[in-house]
Amino acid sequence: MPKIRIGLIGYGGIGRVHAGAYRAIPFHYGLPADSITIAGVATTRPETAKRAAEEIGCSTFTDDFRQLLARDDIDMVDICTPNNSHHEIVLAAAAAGKHIYCEKPLALNVAEAEAMAQAVRAAGVKAQVTFNFRFFPAVMRAKELVDAGFLGRVFSFRGRYHRSSYIEGDKPMSWRLQRDVTGGGALFDLGSHVLDLLYYILGEFESVNGTLDTLIRERPAAAGSAEMARVDVDDIALLQARAADGRLGTVEISRMGTGATNDLCFEIFGQRGAMRFDLGDPAWLHVYDARDAEGPPGVGPGFRRIEAVSRYDGQRAPDWTMTPDFMRSHAEGQYQFIRSIWEGRATSPSFDDGAHVQKIMAAAERSSELGTWVRLAEL
Amino acid sequence: MPKIRIGLIGYGGIGRVHAGAYRAIPFHYGLPADSITIAGVATTRPETAKRAAEEIGCSTFTDDFRQLLARDDIDMVDICTPNNSHHEIVLAAAAAGKHIYCEKPLALNVAEAEAMAQAVRAAGVKAQVTFNFRFFPAVMRAKELVDAGFLGRVFSFRGRYHRSSYIEGDKPMSWRLQRDVTGGGALFDLGSHVLDLLYYILGEFESVNGTLDTLIRERPAAAGSAEMARVDVDDIALLQARAADGRLGTVEISRMGTGATNDLCFEIFGQRGAMRFDLGDPAWLHVYDARDAEGPPGVGPGFRRIEAVSRYDGQRAPDWTMTPDFMRSHAEGQYQFIRSIWEGRATSPSFDDGAHVQKIMAAAERSSELGTWVRLAEL
Amino acid sequence: MPKIRIGLIGYGGIGRVHAGAYRAIPFHYGLPADSITIAGVATTRPETAKRAAEEIGCSTFTDDFRQLLARDDIDMVDICTPNNSHHEIVLAAAAAGKHIYCEKPLALNVAEAEAMAQAVRAAGVKAQVTFNFRFFPAVMRAKELVDAGFLGRVFSFRGRYHRSSYIEGDKPMSWRLQRDVTGGGALFDLGSHVLDLLYYILGEFESVNGTLDTLIRERPAAAGSAEMARVDVDDIALLQARAADGRLGTVEISRMGTGATNDLCFEIFGQRGAMRFDLGDPAWLHVYDARDAEGPPGVGPGFRRIEAVSRYDGQRAPDWTMTPDFMRSHAEGQYQFIRSIWEGRATSPSFDDGAHVQKIMAAAERSSELGTWVRLAEL
Amino acid sequence: MPKIRIGLIGYGGIGRVHAGAYRAIPFHYGLPADSITIAGVATTRPETAKRAAEEIGCSTFTDDFRQLLARDDIDMVDICTPNNSHHEIVLAAAAAGKHIYCEKPLALNVAEAEAMAQAVRAAGVKAQVTFNFRFFPAVMRAKELVDAGFLGRVFSFRGRYHRSSYIEGDKPMSWRLQRDVTGGGALFDLGSHVLDLLYYILGEFESVNGTLDTLIRERPAAAGSAEMARVDVDDIALLQARAADGRLGTVEISRMGTGATNDLCFEIFGQRGAMRFDLGDPAWLHVYDARDAEGPPGVGPGFRRIEAVSRYDGQRAPDWTMTPDFMRSHAEGQYQFIRSIWEGRATSPSFDDGAHVQKIMAAAERSSELGTWVRLAEL
Repeated sequence: MPKIRIGLIGYGGIGRVHAGAYRAIPFHYGLPADSITIAGVATTRPETAKRAAEEIGCSTFTDDFRQLLARDDIDMVDICTPNNSHHEIVLAAAAAGKHIYCEKPLALNVAEAEAMAQAVRAAGVKAQVTFNFRFFPAVMRAKELVDAGFLGRVFSFRGRYHRSSYIEGDKPMSWRLQRDVTGGGALFDLGSHVLDLLYYILGEFESVNGTLDTLIRERPAAAGSAEMARVDVDDIALLQARAADGRLGTVEISRMGTGATNDLCFEIFGQRGAMRFDLGDPAWLHVYDARDAEGPPGVGPGFRRIEAVSRYDGQRAPDWTMTPDFMRSHAEGQYQFIRSIWEGRATSPSFDDGAHVQKIMAAAERSSELGTWVRLAEL
Repeated sequence: MPKIRIGLIGYGGIGRVHAGAYRAIPFHYGLPADSITIAGVATTRPETAKRAAEEIGCSTFTDDFRQLLARDDIDMVDICTPNNSHHEIVLAAAAAGKHIYCEKPLALNVAEAEAMAQAVRAAGVKAQVTFNFRFFPAVMRAKELVDAGFLGRVFSFRGRYHRSSYIEGDKPMSWRLQRDVTGGGALFDLGSHVLDLLYYILGEFESVNGTLDTLIRERPAAAGSAEMARVDVDDIALLQARAADGRLGTVEISRMGTGATNDLCFEIFGQRGAMRFDLGDPAWLHVYDARDAEGPPGVGPGFRRIEAVSRYDGQRAPDWTMTPDFMRSHAEGQYQFIRSIWEGRATSPSFDDGAHVQKIMAAAERSSELGTWVRLAEL
Repeated sequence: MPKIRIGLIGYGGIGRVHAGAYRAIPFHYGLPADSITIAGVATTRPETAKRAAEEIGCSTFTDDFRQLLARDDIDMVDICTPNNSHHEIVLAAAAAGKHIYCEKPLALNVAEAEAMAQAVRAAGVKAQVTFNFRFFPAVMRAKELVDAGFLGRVFSFRGRYHRSSYIEGDKPMSWRLQRDVTGGGALFDLGSHVLDLLYYILGEFESVNGTLDTLIRERPAAAGSAEMARVDVDDIALLQARAADGRLGTVEISRMGTGATNDLCFEIFGQRGAMRFDLGDPAWLHVYDARDAEGPPGVGPGFRRIEAVSRYDGQRAPDWTMTPDFMRSHAEGQYQFIRSIWEGRATSPSFDDGAHVQKIMAAAERSSELGTWVRLAEL
Repeated sequence: MPKIRIGLIGYGGIGRVHAGAYRAIPFHYGLPADSITIAGVATTRPETAKRAAEEIGCSTFTDDFRQLLARDDIDMVDICTPNNSHHEIVLAAAAAGKHIYCEKPLALNVAEAEAMAQAVRAAGVKAQVTFNFRFFPAVMRAKELVDAGFLGRVFSFRGRYHRSSYIEGDKPMSWRLQRDVTGGGALFDLGSHVLDLLYYILGEFESVNGTLDTLIRERPAAAGSAEMARVDVDDIALLQARAADGRLGTVEISRMGTGATNDLCFEIFGQRGAMRFDLGDPAWLHVYDARDAEGPPGVGPGFRRIEAVSRYDGQRAPDWTMTPDFMRSHAEGQYQFIRSIWEGRATSPSFDDGAHVQKIMAAAERSSELGTWVRLAEL
């Protein structure tokens, strides 16, 4: 397999996670240490770019991401910048013929997202969105089971992503609370993850009935400041949603989920079975098989906690009988993307997937404004 | 205290539970065995009335509930009949000057419920609705904590009542699936319970955004029958709801909750704390106290599982360090009602409470038809 | 069936529980209200006997239990007195031809227990020990599964009964801390329950390696007293135990289990399956079926939480989909005993069972003194 | 800080984990990528050494570990070989002046372990044992709390490490089942971990009452072979243990724990509090603070699930609000060891700590043979 040389764009918190995860891939899969390397890094300032390069151990660094795009020794870019720059970078990278791995949510709005999906399609480059929670083994197992018909007809579903990061009223403004940078609030930041999981496992949404609110509407303009600034994004978003097959469900998204650290979970109820996953207990998928009531007398049905810790295809390192973590899910998503490049196969989650999630979020926002259900097809 | 002599109207499953629970009260509270007795029983047929009287151990039985109302040796009636008879019986009992303990939901609709609340007020009799889940110790503890300001400003809430009793498509029609008998489906049968708990703990609702559906719309007219009958009530109901203070939340109600037996739970998130209760684990209330982060260095905050098994005022029997059950919650509700009679104090949950729950449910139904939010004040 | 008329001997906390549970039996099983009655009560003082009779609603009361034994209108006695009186009462009751239901532990020591088992056998009366935890549905289900070979060869087991009732050093002396009244400490009071469950499900024990200790050796002679009294019973008992088939395990018993209310649990590990039960979550039995790994591709193995709430044979009252409680387990045990009388079948747990538990406890005490394993056959 | 250049000895499963974890350290702590590097690798065969070097990305490889010890460009060695080679390698490495990071258990027996501890002390090199579970944040938090007096007087404890890796009787012999390679069975492999955790948190053990057994005593000599070989190590080990302060407890160790993947847990009960940890749910430490019952009326005591996910000193990467994994604990242990080198401070767990764990295991084995308690001081 050709070596993959990555240009990393953005080196804040999530950029560092991506960088660390790339380094772990060779060890997880028994590849040569130099099969995947970060060849260059771009940030917005020369000094942060230089420091990033030292940490990463690469010689190329720049405060202009286009310099990375111009290099022949870079095969793909990984975009870890704020949401409002994704569109510009993706279009430039596609034009430069680079494969693209881009953080979520894909864009500020549906128009951007669809343009980005179109651009990578036109350019013939591979592109993937970082919905890393798809790559927890329990989620992968859930997908397999649903695809195999485990649930039968799906009746209903529930999703949640709660954090408690904004319950303090004196927590000051930040870019995460500014619509022009992020495109949206809790719905975009947290909701995109759980909506993607439900979409990934169950398929497309048809319509949404959303209620968004901003429970704390003013915050100090800066830490300790007496000046108050208006928050223009949601900190809570409650959705009802339907799909064409009639299944319906609820999704709860909140940055005001007192007591939560990362309370991401979903549940699905079907005629033949049910399942649930909780990120706070990530080693397990809980499944219920209604067929256990049939056949010869036995134990009978009940929610079963099935091990979901050692399901990475090709994993070589031992003791993946242990609970996987956040980094590991990133490494798996990156590895699957790189395999798409190597093997010429389709990516998942693709930019089209990212655009569908963007539509669900847009429908939720529109629904909240109108006070009625909104069909995705109407957007 | 004067002896309380009860006329029990209806002796199906829940009637038997009520009868058993009355018998347990003297033991729980150290009262003389004859302080509370079932003096008579009414059902719809002479033979079932006779058999009920044998089980109960009372000499009076009848297939005409008005005969119980006419007796001087009956102080209160307990109504365990289907929903469509509550209104008539309550009005007659109030006119006869009997105290009234009535199963939930109070009525078929808001008009009936309000008339019933008015009738008992006018007659000066005590009246209570059987929302027995209020009387699980963990729920009582939750109410105390919220009343004491434990949560601070309430941000949001979530409630659920799931059962899986109707996931099989060949389960035949029954009175529980007929609107003219029940007034509603899962929303009325299960939803009334969880909506009452949220109302009890947090106060009145202002508006509702509800989606009701009937996932299985036709069922065999009878067991094994090839003839199909149309189900005219919901089997799933998803609510978003708001109160005047801005708190908002979701409620999930379903008879199609695959894998559930009695999955009744709620969660509440506030600025100073959070709490959750799960009927499947009824010995505990889970609380989170944000103030644990303050003060001298200590353990720090976290969800705490507090014991909620020995909180019945006046309880004399030992080993209520054990998990309480369904019967015990009924006995406590009945005892509190009887104390209201003895002590001349207000009942809780009153018929006005029952009427508020009826309004929430009506708003949910209207909202589902209109596809918009509905304010309770508009009904 | 002939009516059963009970003489209740002892009316402290557990006596009241037994009395309440008898009253509930007719409702649980649809029997006439007068099929099972408490005909008389005996305590140690006339005034407590009179008050007990008022609560129970019986006309016969006495401070001499032999007066109950002399009555023709009493068919069985229920012994709820302290352990040091069981032997005397049982022998007298057997001589009087009464059936005997006796609280645990059966006796102060093995000699007493064996004499009691012999006495009831000789008298031809039915006799049962109140190991009420056998009658939680989850335990009944565990027994059924093990009897059906679910576990295959049993490798090992673990049991625990923890309470935290004595962690405070200033809690004063009481009869529960006096060997001459109780025969033993935590081992007798708590340990007898969990040892009985393991014996019930798995069969006899062969040898024991026990360590008993008294972590708080002196306590105030009375509440608030400066005088200290020596505690002569264990407050913690740790056992290793073996059976003839080679299975081995541990049992942890403690009154010093900080944070526990009623932490009774067991786990069993076998070649084909495993199971666990926790009294703090009594609605469920957790089972693991190694065979789930075989056969057509499916969900795969995992601990399964099976519903164990509606397994009482003949149960008529509804909504036993709810978590059962302590009272319900007593009512079931009493009902099974009464059915043994009615149907002439063997009781379970019999006095022989009670005597085996007594031997296990004696072996644990002896082992702790000697610092070596002790075989039950050597006692 | 000077760069740390590591010689990795052994590259089986755990060697690969160590290698991956070293690579992750710079990212976790914001160090330059080249601050910690694997400079060479030694295995037992040239071809595996060459392949290891490719994966690792180092130019030095050898089938003779002494060649690594001879190099000036190697500062420390990491020993990931089977237990029976630790002693020889450690003595040689100490003689060569290399710092030593060695997998657990430290040695085959107490004599070897003490000699190794003496050797590194004499040589003045830093040495640490890989008890990586110490470096789960929840365990670190438990240690802090106990050191701060959270528990008050410790009454008792319980530890467990169960896996189910050997329940199948047709699983063939391997080096893990041969005493001459491993020194012991489940006790050494799994027990060393949980015994170290209890020792780390609570301090030294004084005496042990152990029962070891081999539930499956013969296994196929090779996969599918009809020839049977005798297993000469334990597959289950049950311990009772005491410390000088009177605390006592149990430890359950088994490879026959049907249904377990990595069931490592501990619980500690003290006069002022209690705590428990479960590796299957590693994001949380559960604590009970008896003092919550005091002071102004409040929530009252209860087991509290405290977040234990973001406690790594100096951690720079974000989203360590997520559950940590096995790799992360290794990286932290390695980083603490390297900081010991950089800062000249004592290591933890030291080789003396490793030798104490070795003594506990030796006492358990001796006790099992003798059938009596064994004091560590008598070994």
